[in-house]
Amino acid sequence: MPDILHRVGINAKPERVHESLTTIEGLRGWWVSETKGDAKPGGTIDFGFCAMKVLEATPQRVRWRCISGPPEWVGTEVTFDLAWKDEQTIVLFKHAGWKEPVEFMHHCSTKWATFLLSLRDLLEKGSGTPAPHDVKIHVGD
Amino acid sequence: MPDILHRVGINAKPERVHESLTTIEGLRGWWVSETKGDAKPGGTIDFGFCAMKVLEATPQRVRWRCISGPPEWVGTEVTFDLAWKDEQTIVLFKHAGWKEPVEFMHHCSTKWATFLLSLRDLLEKGSGTPAPHDVKIHVGD
Repeated sequence: MPDILHRVGINAKPERVHESLTTIEGLRGWWVSETKGDAKPGGTIDFGFCAMKVLEATPQRVRWRCISGPPEWVGTEVTFDLAWKDEQTIVLFKHAGWKEPVEFMHHCSTKWATFLLSLRDLLEKGSGTPAPHDVKIHVGD
Repeated sequence: MPDILHRVGINAKPERVHESLTTIEGLRGWWVSETKGDAKPGGTIDFGFCAMKVLEATPQRVRWRCISGPPEWVGTEVTFDLAWKDEQTIVLFKHAGWKEPVEFMHHCSTKWATFLLSLRDLLEKGSGTPAPHDVKIHVGD
């Protein structure tokens, strides 16, 4: 099954990146402004258009499973692996479990890149571009 | 084998997008400033860090094969499918033929997203961010 993969390096300690992935306030700063719920292991995060169950949230890895949202997303898993290397936190991202490489998957791949750069901007510059003020990747996005 | 997939919508006619993919001047505007060579079918494009053989360049599809460059790239294929839809040119991008989902593949996936948005900016705003003035995605990039 095809996966969406990305990698960004962030000029911030892994603990700060981890916090942005495991707190509602953090997630509001780079992905979805209206995020609600519980971002700790076992909790469910409500991103409005989808909900994610938190499967894992160790210092090295944050992993969610989509439990509602776009049909193509339900059952898929999103993983962030964090490592300190070359004086930066390397984030290896994977959105796995897509059944088919549909056009929507292409769209989500590009969109995830912009959100990971939003995460980077949040940590390096103090503010990201979470939805609904996210980077637009097509007319009408 | 895993593929890198992306999708962007560009507020420009397919003919203009096609031109940016099939002329040296066009490619210099969004991917690599120092691009040289022949971007027509059968030609070889020299991007400095890699070279691509042009396998196909119809109005709907541009396809290259990497013939030199990073070892992980050699033999891989890059495809741009163009379609006019909802008053914009939809670009479906695929970089296929990776042997393994190595960390460098994650990096290239994110980087391709930024270059496709550079292509969009070139066509919509008149200038892109080709290398070496490309969007940086890690410290030291």
